[in-house]
Amino acid sequence: MSGLRPLDLLVRGAREVFTSTAAGPLDGAVVGVRQGVIAYLGDPRGLGAAGFEATAATRTLDATGMLVTPGLVDPHTHLVFAGDRAEEYGRRAAGVPYLQIAAEGGGIAATMRATREAAEDALVAAARPRLDALLRCGVTTAEVKSGYGLTLEAELKMLRAVRALDAAHPIDLVGTFLGAHTVPPERRADRAAHVAEIVEAWIPAVADAGLAAFCDVFVETGAFTIAEGEAVLRAGLAHGLRPKVHADQLSPGGGAELAARVGAVSADHLEHVSDAGVAALAEAGTVAVLLPGAALFLGVDDRAPARRLIEGGVRVALSTDCNPGTCMTENLLLMLTLGMSRLGLGAREVLEAVTVHAAAALGRADVAGTLEVGRPADVAIFATPTHHHLPYHFGGDPTRWVIKGGRVVYGD
Amino acid sequence: MSGLRPLDLLVRGAREVFTSTAAGPLDGAVVGVRQGVIAYLGDPRGLGAAGFEATAATRTLDATGMLVTPGLVDPHTHLVFAGDRAEEYGRRAAGVPYLQIAAEGGGIAATMRATREAAEDALVAAARPRLDALLRCGVTTAEVKSGYGLTLEAELKMLRAVRALDAAHPIDLVGTFLGAHTVPPERRADRAAHVAEIVEAWIPAVADAGLAAFCDVFVETGAFTIAEGEAVLRAGLAHGLRPKVHADQLSPGGGAELAARVGAVSADHLEHVSDAGVAALAEAGTVAVLLPGAALFLGVDDRAPARRLIEGGVRVALSTDCNPGTCMTENLLLMLTLGMSRLGLGAREVLEAVTVHAAAALGRADVAGTLEVGRPADVAIFATPTHHHLPYHFGGDPTRWVIKGGRVVYGD
Repeated sequence: MSGLRPLDLLVRGAREVFTSTAAGPLDGAVVGVRQGVIAYLGDPRGLGAAGFEATAATRTLDATGMLVTPGLVDPHTHLVFAGDRAEEYGRRAAGVPYLQIAAEGGGIAATMRATREAAEDALVAAARPRLDALLRCGVTTAEVKSGYGLTLEAELKMLRAVRALDAAHPIDLVGTFLGAHTVPPERRADRAAHVAEIVEAWIPAVADAGLAAFCDVFVETGAFTIAEGEAVLRAGLAHGLRPKVHADQLSPGGGAELAARVGAVSADHLEHVSDAGVAALAEAGTVAVLLPGAALFLGVDDRAPARRLIEGGVRVALSTDCNPGTCMTENLLLMLTLGMSRLGLGAREVLEAVTVHAAAALGRADVAGTLEVGRPADVAIFATPTHHHLPYHFGGDPTRWVIKGGRVVYGD
Repeated sequence: MSGLRPLDLLVRGAREVFTSTAAGPLDGAVVGVRQGVIAYLGDPRGLGAAGFEATAATRTLDATGMLVTPGLVDPHTHLVFAGDRAEEYGRRAAGVPYLQIAAEGGGIAATMRATREAAEDALVAAARPRLDALLRCGVTTAEVKSGYGLTLEAELKMLRAVRALDAAHPIDLVGTFLGAHTVPPERRADRAAHVAEIVEAWIPAVADAGLAAFCDVFVETGAFTIAEGEAVLRAGLAHGLRPKVHADQLSPGGGAELAARVGAVSADHLEHVSDAGVAALAEAGTVAVLLPGAALFLGVDDRAPARRLIEGGVRVALSTDCNPGTCMTENLLLMLTLGMSRLGLGAREVLEAVTVHAAAALGRADVAGTLEVGRPADVAIFATPTHHHLPYHFGGDPTRWVIKGGRVVYGD
């Protein structure tokens, strides 16, 4: 009897273990997993002294020359929807204005109609390959918003689809109620009553059903005003839904300040955040979630002021923004490259932006986004040497294995 | 006896066959292959009347709901090299000027030193996974340039590596001599003698060895002048190497006009091409090869004037520009998205840009880049419904099968 506890899983040989903590990156460390939890992290020669051993029953992943990171976290997606807008994309690339497309019944209203018509099962079936694609990028936790139903019933259907996907897929999903995504066409004549209904009826129903952790609102000219957004977010708070805000995407409209004022867990987009907005986010501890894929997809030159946010004391996360209208991708790794090339972040910062800070943007910093002993073993292993190489060599398929709660869920 | 000739391979069930010819796209067509060549293309009910049949020996690929295209062509890569520049990438993202990096021995000189030091076998081994990544994007023909050796011996070594890779890998490779990529540090004191040596010694040696189809030159401030470029390209022509030009990337320096004047098969980059340059390219029939990945990778807002080129009568191709310094990717599919979002092309135009026009940029329009009866059966099959969806849903892994010369070389 060795007296040592056997590991269930051992990741060995890695060139670099990027822990997303101040303790890392660690060159040549091993990661030992027992009972779904990270049991050991460090020099392979220290395993025994820490009380663990690899036995014949331990599954060993040979990560020689590879990069090990926390399972990635995608904190902002709209990946449950029906239909697609591929032909609309061609029209936008050809210069047709979005307002014209929307006036003809396209844009978000097209996704809304398709999503309303789809059965919950059909939404689940359409979203599942999108989750598979996220997993192939090393993602183990993701947020999914409602916001294409825009009736109470259709919003609940979307959130039930998120719950069903969470149960059926290795990726942990966090549901966000985005009933205030846009005012649906049939309610435009009486938007005050519509907002009142969201506040008085939809939010209580969503909260009662236990289907969402967050309440989000799209504050922008053409969507919701600051006052409307604040009413929705405060109603969410009163029902236990933590606030998130789509803020300052197209103009500096005070969205960041609103996010800070209501204690939002994150303010997302922020391409046009004001200096006062940055200061408010820093003071409130609100995480900035930046979404550089949309500019790529739409061909615009907008860049969120990532360096100004970091220098102002705001934690910066990155996300795909996966959605059918403005960023049809699940490739979170590509956001690392854009975070560097277009937003001016460093390699370490972009890795932190899809791990520890993305977890914070979902209120999950205690369980996700870092590699630490005692944490759930959510781990991604990439066939690339270091965290410098993951953003550098872009557009590829570097993910070798993904581990969720100690179980290998991607890779052979 | 049916009297019908049996097919070796049948691709059936496709939602759309994008032929890259005026005859397509064809909805619901099948592709029949016999003896490595496309034998039939069209309605499945017409197979017998055309004299073919699927038998028990015919391999059938069930492409139900999928998109079938010509095997893609990547007409501009630098994918044979040693070393990497991942850490330099972080410095550039942080705002360190390239000239400072170069002055410290980084930049292209770092790749030159690593490539000079590498054995031919090492170059082959380093490049092979890059070809695998291209194949995973549906590429069946690609160009590879020399230009990191910058001695005759090292340039020949690079081109021998291209030849070895061509023999060992399903992708057809076309070698381009780019000895005039930059003046190597040790020759800067006497650049006239260096150019003379390229003209008088290197080009004859490369041509004698039969290792390249094209001669390319980087015409730009800091690289080679128009006069130097013209001398190199005319020497190449005299030795049977068709001209290509890295033109007007950083400034409108007359590179396009040079390309037209020497009858170049392609002029590449062209972000700053002048109106006179566009007219000259159209008149000469020179293909414009646009490389939007570099702007993404470097975070700059430059856009080649794709619409102006097309409206001026120039055929436009797209390419990865795969190289370690300014675009470390093999993802040609991502260039479709950038071609639409940043360059304003349509879905049909971007597909043509990586098939028929890319083949023209390699002088291979007679054998590659289209699906036509009698052509070699180079075919890509994507798990996406139509050519509108391939650029729209970006950053994923849509390639289901790749067929090269009638043989399935990717996919199970």
